[in-house]
Amino acid sequence: MESLSVALDGRSYPIHIGEGLLDQRSLYAPYGRGAAAVVTNAIVAPLYLARVRAALEACGARVVEVVIEDGEQAKGLATLDRVIDALLAARLGRDGLIVALGGGVVGDLAGFAAAVYQRGVAFLQLPTTLLAQVDSSVGGKTAINHARGKNMIGAFHQPCAVITDVATLDTLPDRQLRAGLAEVIKHGVALDAAFVDWLEVNMAALLARKREALVYAIRRSCELKAAIVAQDERESGVRALLNLGHTFGHAIETATGFGPWLHGEAVAAGMVMAARLSARAGMLPPRDAERIQALIARAGLPTRAPKLAAERWRELIAVDKKSAGGRVRFVLLEAMGRATLKAGVDERLVEETIAAAQ
Amino acid sequence: MESLSVALDGRSYPIHIGEGLLDQRSLYAPYGRGAAAVVTNAIVAPLYLARVRAALEACGARVVEVVIEDGEQAKGLATLDRVIDALLAARLGRDGLIVALGGGVVGDLAGFAAAVYQRGVAFLQLPTTLLAQVDSSVGGKTAINHARGKNMIGAFHQPCAVITDVATLDTLPDRQLRAGLAEVIKHGVALDAAFVDWLEVNMAALLARKREALVYAIRRSCELKAAIVAQDERESGVRALLNLGHTFGHAIETATGFGPWLHGEAVAAGMVMAARLSARAGMLPPRDAERIQALIARAGLPTRAPKLAAERWRELIAVDKKSAGGRVRFVLLEAMGRATLKAGVDERLVEETIAAAQ
Repeated sequence: MESLSVALDGRSYPIHIGEGLLDQRSLYAPYGRGAAAVVTNAIVAPLYLARVRAALEACGARVVEVVIEDGEQAKGLATLDRVIDALLAARLGRDGLIVALGGGVVGDLAGFAAAVYQRGVAFLQLPTTLLAQVDSSVGGKTAINHARGKNMIGAFHQPCAVITDVATLDTLPDRQLRAGLAEVIKHGVALDAAFVDWLEVNMAALLARKREALVYAIRRSCELKAAIVAQDERESGVRALLNLGHTFGHAIETATGFGPWLHGEAVAAGMVMAARLSARAGMLPPRDAERIQALIARAGLPTRAPKLAAERWRELIAVDKKSAGGRVRFVLLEAMGRATLKAGVDERLVEETIAAAQ
Repeated sequence: MESLSVALDGRSYPIHIGEGLLDQRSLYAPYGRGAAAVVTNAIVAPLYLARVRAALEACGARVVEVVIEDGEQAKGLATLDRVIDALLAARLGRDGLIVALGGGVVGDLAGFAAAVYQRGVAFLQLPTTLLAQVDSSVGGKTAINHARGKNMIGAFHQPCAVITDVATLDTLPDRQLRAGLAEVIKHGVALDAAFVDWLEVNMAALLARKREALVYAIRRSCELKAAIVAQDERESGVRALLNLGHTFGHAIETATGFGPWLHGEAVAAGMVMAARLSARAGMLPPRDAERIQALIARAGLPTRAPKLAAERWRELIAVDKKSAGGRVRFVLLEAMGRATLKAGVDERLVEETIAAAQ
């Protein structure tokens, strides 16, 4: 087992990464002694819920199960209402624990429920998808979607720990594995050129689910992300760089109605667009944009966006959370491994990038 | 104008109290320079919205109006969804300001919207009811209701300032004024015996809306509350004392469906019950419980609870947020002006208190 820490004044927490951790009751013991509500979905429940329940009960916890539907469609106010209802019906108190067992949707929704249930209760992340293990379970961003945009209702609410059992990836469909690799690639492209080199060499091993390669990719992603979160928990500055590919990516997800495109797939196509826009703006050598697109293609991820009307793109980009004073800001690249936040990007270049990407 | 401060590391904020403050653009200037969404209700909008809009626009703000229905029924997920929708439609960014113009429902709902909209935006309180001026606008508690309980979904989100224009009380119906006095009385009964003495002398002046008496009662209430909030922002200890009367009060509101009883009315009856329970438990001289009941009656507030089945009372009390490890804790009195949090209260005494109060 490897452990690293997300350093935040008074609220630092560990990330444990290894095989078979879901059963290790010693990892749960510091948090799961009272009532614990495990939020999971209909796909994950039959695979892992009994083991998590057993480990928590061995710590003396009273376990409540809350099973939601699978998929991004579940990440809205209606499901939040049902989860809160279940917590109240089970009389979970302010000293209760909410456990997220699943991927990004479960983690974001359960984390937001933990942030707002009785004005905030403790929260434990058990990510079971690569995407959640390398990205969404780390850093305390929680949110649900609104019909007008993704993650528009949310809170910063740090977990008390993240327990990543890499053995859960054995049951992950290929498409989901690739979607997780999109965020792994993002961490390299945005923050660490040497990690991009490593990914180019090891992409085949990752797709073949070689355990050693996966553990390294998860650990390096968490390290890169944790360092950023420690500097800027609430995204007033440098943390925005982790949104590389997300302005275009969220637009794709919103336009297609949250579902046909997985989040990682949308981010992959969005990252290619951000790289191309950086090249068009003269910030990035075009061959680095080629390299990024090639790496994303080798991961089996989409490099092109769906066809949408130009007006719809404008609308979706304008609503992006990174807009400030009405101006949209883009995360662009000034070198491989060096992302930067850019306001005042020429709209013509954005439109050309969109036209070329469809 | 009088000003006091709520002292919180790095997030201290002022409370300004005086006449005609709604028009004083200098008070808005530090906060209202970008986009500002004023959330108010259908009763308050025709009275004060134009003046607030003018003051904000004079500071250079782009003003968006969001008018919700009046009443506790509006304080739920459905209205939150509509408010978020309006904010997104108006393209309010993360640097936007949400302004709550109204009473407790508007402040709690708009404050919660500010806490979760795009993971948190700035928030200005313009309380127009006595209850909001002395209690709900101060301290950063925001929340909405769930069918299973009041304020069950919420967040701690401090405002950047509270601007209290006492002239808004001129348009407040008598019943609402009295409901606000319940929280004023609560501050005295829970925290300051000398303030109870003052209230006994000045209750007639308050009911007659003598401006000087009202300003003093508002200022003293805010001082008492601010001192508690500064010690314990997130209610892990002493802040729970401000919930005197609220365990029984919330039960009354939930059982009657949020509406027939105003919050202050339910707290008034709940406070009488808490005082009676304290006397039954041998903690408080019975004549102090009499004094509290008499003061509440002189304010024209209810001193008796509605008839509910014993099982319903038990259920509603068990779901109370102050329960810890499955045990309900009550805020009781150990002397006039000295509230204390008590676990393990004899259930028989609780049942007797409920039976006697109906």
